[in-house]
Amino acid sequence: MLKNDTFLRACRKEPTDFTPVWIMRQAGRYMKEYRAIRKRVGFLEMCKTPELVAEATLLPIDILGVDAAILFSDILIPVEAMGMEVCFTEKGGPVFLNPIRTESQIQGLSIPGPSESKERMPFIADSIRLILRALDKRVPLIGFSGAPFTLATYMIEGETSKNFTWIKRVMYTEPALLHNLLDQIAITVIHYLDMQIEAGVHAVQLFDTWAGSLSPDDYKEFALPYVEKVIRGIDRRGCPLILFANGVSSLLEYMGNSGADVVGLDWRIDIGDAGKRVGDRVALQGNLDPCVLYAEPSVIRRHVKSILGKHGRGPGHIFNLGHGILPDTPVDHAKALVEIVHEESK
Amino acid sequence: MLKNDTFLRACRKEPTDFTPVWIMRQAGRYMKEYRAIRKRVGFLEMCKTPELVAEATLLPIDILGVDAAILFSDILIPVEAMGMEVCFTEKGGPVFLNPIRTESQIQGLSIPGPSESKERMPFIADSIRLILRALDKRVPLIGFSGAPFTLATYMIEGETSKNFTWIKRVMYTEPALLHNLLDQIAITVIHYLDMQIEAGVHAVQLFDTWAGSLSPDDYKEFALPYVEKVIRGIDRRGCPLILFANGVSSLLEYMGNSGADVVGLDWRIDIGDAGKRVGDRVALQGNLDPCVLYAEPSVIRRHVKSILGKHGRGPGHIFNLGHGILPDTPVDHAKALVEIVHEESK
Repeated sequence: MLKNDTFLRACRKEPTDFTPVWIMRQAGRYMKEYRAIRKRVGFLEMCKTPELVAEATLLPIDILGVDAAILFSDILIPVEAMGMEVCFTEKGGPVFLNPIRTESQIQGLSIPGPSESKERMPFIADSIRLILRALDKRVPLIGFSGAPFTLATYMIEGETSKNFTWIKRVMYTEPALLHNLLDQIAITVIHYLDMQIEAGVHAVQLFDTWAGSLSPDDYKEFALPYVEKVIRGIDRRGCPLILFANGVSSLLEYMGNSGADVVGLDWRIDIGDAGKRVGDRVALQGNLDPCVLYAEPSVIRRHVKSILGKHGRGPGHIFNLGHGILPDTPVDHAKALVEIVHEESK
Repeated sequence: MLKNDTFLRACRKEPTDFTPVWIMRQAGRYMKEYRAIRKRVGFLEMCKTPELVAEATLLPIDILGVDAAILFSDILIPVEAMGMEVCFTEKGGPVFLNPIRTESQIQGLSIPGPSESKERMPFIADSIRLILRALDKRVPLIGFSGAPFTLATYMIEGETSKNFTWIKRVMYTEPALLHNLLDQIAITVIHYLDMQIEAGVHAVQLFDTWAGSLSPDDYKEFALPYVEKVIRGIDRRGCPLILFANGVSSLLEYMGNSGADVVGLDWRIDIGDAGKRVGDRVALQGNLDPCVLYAEPSVIRRHVKSILGKHGRGPGHIFNLGHGILPDTPVDHAKALVEIVHEESK
């Protein structure tokens, strides 16, 4: 039994004594303790070293007092396990040396099944076990994966993209090729999340960060079916599933009907409106503009109260930012956010 | 009298024989004729040379057969006229050497009134006169300006921004300072558009490109009031006004009630849904994903038919892309788009 299961109860829309809160990228560069770890090792090496993963994962529990931990990792880990060589540049983010552009490259991918997933990414289950031991049942642990469309975007673009011209080019000129790739990624994600659930995570989040680049029709054709395939395909064992996407105000109804338990909102939609649109079945996560944390606690409090008031539908709200916490956020303000959410929601 | 006033009639929701079409950034790098001009002069110099502005503005009329011309210029021209030094880098876009961060910098800005606008930007009216002569009443000419929030974003960030951290920092920590700046920009934009209308443009478009970075509450506080101030403040003389913003699916109702005649949509919203949300008063412009133009005409046709079918509300549709045409778009595909829109809407 967890000492604080508020996050899980909120995911299931059960009553809670207060609104639980965690922060996307809560173990990150804004924390000096994180920067100290990163001084010693490269990013990818850190993701593959269970002791360091556990250390980073626990930081926000100890320092901020958030109501859930999230596995420290990168969404491109399973892509590397498919056989793509990735490197992380200090400033520009991840880069694939040979982005996917042809059918034969897709055929050259090696989809890790259940046993290959464990062989190629042993550090995932090892990290989860270390984290669970260190957490000592204080709060639940969230596992995660990139959603198929978002992973395909990285694999085809090769790097963080502005206009998504490569994946869109494939989408509009060779849709069958993209569907083939998305299907293989979906299978990879299913095994990847199954492995995390088997190792003991209490919930999982799918990040469909780039789904917001799509028109609603393209979302329905290229993103949603593969999210649904993953949700149907994984062996949940009671784990709630959170579906987060960015810039998708047009797509909330689809996300609400995807089979996810929780829809994660960016900050560009009113959470009250979102609640009306996704329907009563799902809980909502979000949705403070990460930049509000630049301001003093009194300003943070005003914005938190506004979001809590707008949600105002009783149970089923997990407080979070609408996107990852920014590297230049003062730690004290992140800490204040957690306290304020707890105080104002009691 | 214009020979082809279909665009203006659609802006006013009057019946038309076909759906008019123009393309955001229709005079741009995807055209070899444009690249030839740019080989001879820098971007800012080009914007300030009426003969070259007219040459570029006319290109898409002659080559593509679009139903409206739009003044070739840059949204930062009036910002430079406020006294800010801007330079255009070949790859990274515009950069302000001294971005606005303090009250005294705002006090140091020099708001161009009606006569200063003409003195500091004489090339605008000169360009418009040359263009009108060269157009010879074939199609209407659209003038434009950046909307206050978007211009403020450039002025404060100093360059194209990913997370908008500087303007958000000001927004959440010194909102009065930002309001002061926005108010001064709004006055500048009013005089800037008045000058264009006086010189003879037939319609104007406000580009609020970065409004999509805002939460709905922040949009209502920091973007919308200044758009409304501009719309109320300019001497329209019968010119329709188009309000375009990017990534604002949450904000359509506000845009529809802003006083604009036309709401310009990006591609991330279903134009049929948008029509229901903005109401019957306004026309809609949009909203093909610019990347569809990578595909063959048969694919372009399928997407055009889908958008025309979704709009399906009779008059009041101007076809456009949901954002600027991309530099690697084949010119033949842009030309095909115009033909297809005309054919399929007749």
